[in-house]
Amino acid sequence: MLTQSTTLMFLCGIMLCAACNVKDGINLEKQIISIEHAALDRWNNGDTSGYLEIYADEITYFDPSLEIRIDGLEAMKQLYAPIEGKIKTDRYKMINPKVQIYNTTAVLTYNLVVYMRTKEESMKKSYWNSTEVYTKINEEWKIIHSHWSPFNPKS
Amino acid sequence: MLTQSTTLMFLCGIMLCAACNVKDGINLEKQIISIEHAALDRWNNGDTSGYLEIYADEITYFDPSLEIRIDGLEAMKQLYAPIEGKIKTDRYKMINPKVQIYNTTAVLTYNLVVYMRTKEESMKKSYWNSTEVYTKINEEWKIIHSHWSPFNPKS
Repeated sequence: MLTQSTTLMFLCGIMLCAACNVKDGINLEKQIISIEHAALDRWNNGDTSGYLEIYADEITYFDPSLEIRIDGLEAMKQLYAPIEGKIKTDRYKMINPKVQIYNTTAVLTYNLVVYMRTKEESMKKSYWNSTEVYTKINEEWKIIHSHWSPFNPKS
Repeated sequence: MLTQSTTLMFLCGIMLCAACNVKDGINLEKQIISIEHAALDRWNNGDTSGYLEIYADEITYFDPSLEIRIDGLEAMKQLYAPIEGKIKTDRYKMINPKVQIYNTTAVLTYNLVVYMRTKEESMKKSYWNSTEVYTKINEEWKIIHSHWSPFNPKS
């Protein structure tokens, strides 16, 4: 009887641990997506420092306007300086975000649709693939790699 | 005297550990780049299975021909099936590869130039930004995220 009780308690313990891990994973996914949303909100109102504050010193960065990868936070500050305060979009939509977690590294991927009103008051949309690799550094989640690329929807 | 010797041995130990860590890091960088080169060699000779064999089951994938992110190895096999045996390039050049290591996750980034001979025998070049996120699964390095995007050099 004691053996059965011990086995039951052991199995319950394992199930509880598994349930906690799943909950931790879901919470972390929400946390990463929330950090990204906060940076996007600021970016779409002209504030480039939202991203700069969560870039790690060793960030690597690709976007289609560049001929080479940008390496390091200082280089990112120089890249963003000319556009600070100049971006103003109508709204954006983060589509199908997914967070893959490996220890203290989290890979966030999503599609982004940006809606921007033209001078003629029509709505222009741009479509992006986004990769943001986050790592926990000194208890804070920082982006250590970012890759943006445009795509053209067929419909 | 004993205290000095002990301190000296302790410091030597720390220096040796640091040297080993640097060496391990450099070896891992070489290993990751070598795995990627092997897959690229096969890809540029029409063999898509070079990549398929190192994609993890949970791979996520972006390229500019897609409207949505591809999730999972089975979907990748379906994506590559129609082009199996059909890609033949003249040569390729991996430019400025960089490996960022965080525990058992490694982020490889590089630019790729692909040289392809046209029917008129002129050489056509295409330029790519590449992100490959590797993680160690069952003692093997597997790609868990891949993002390809083209860029146009200004010169």
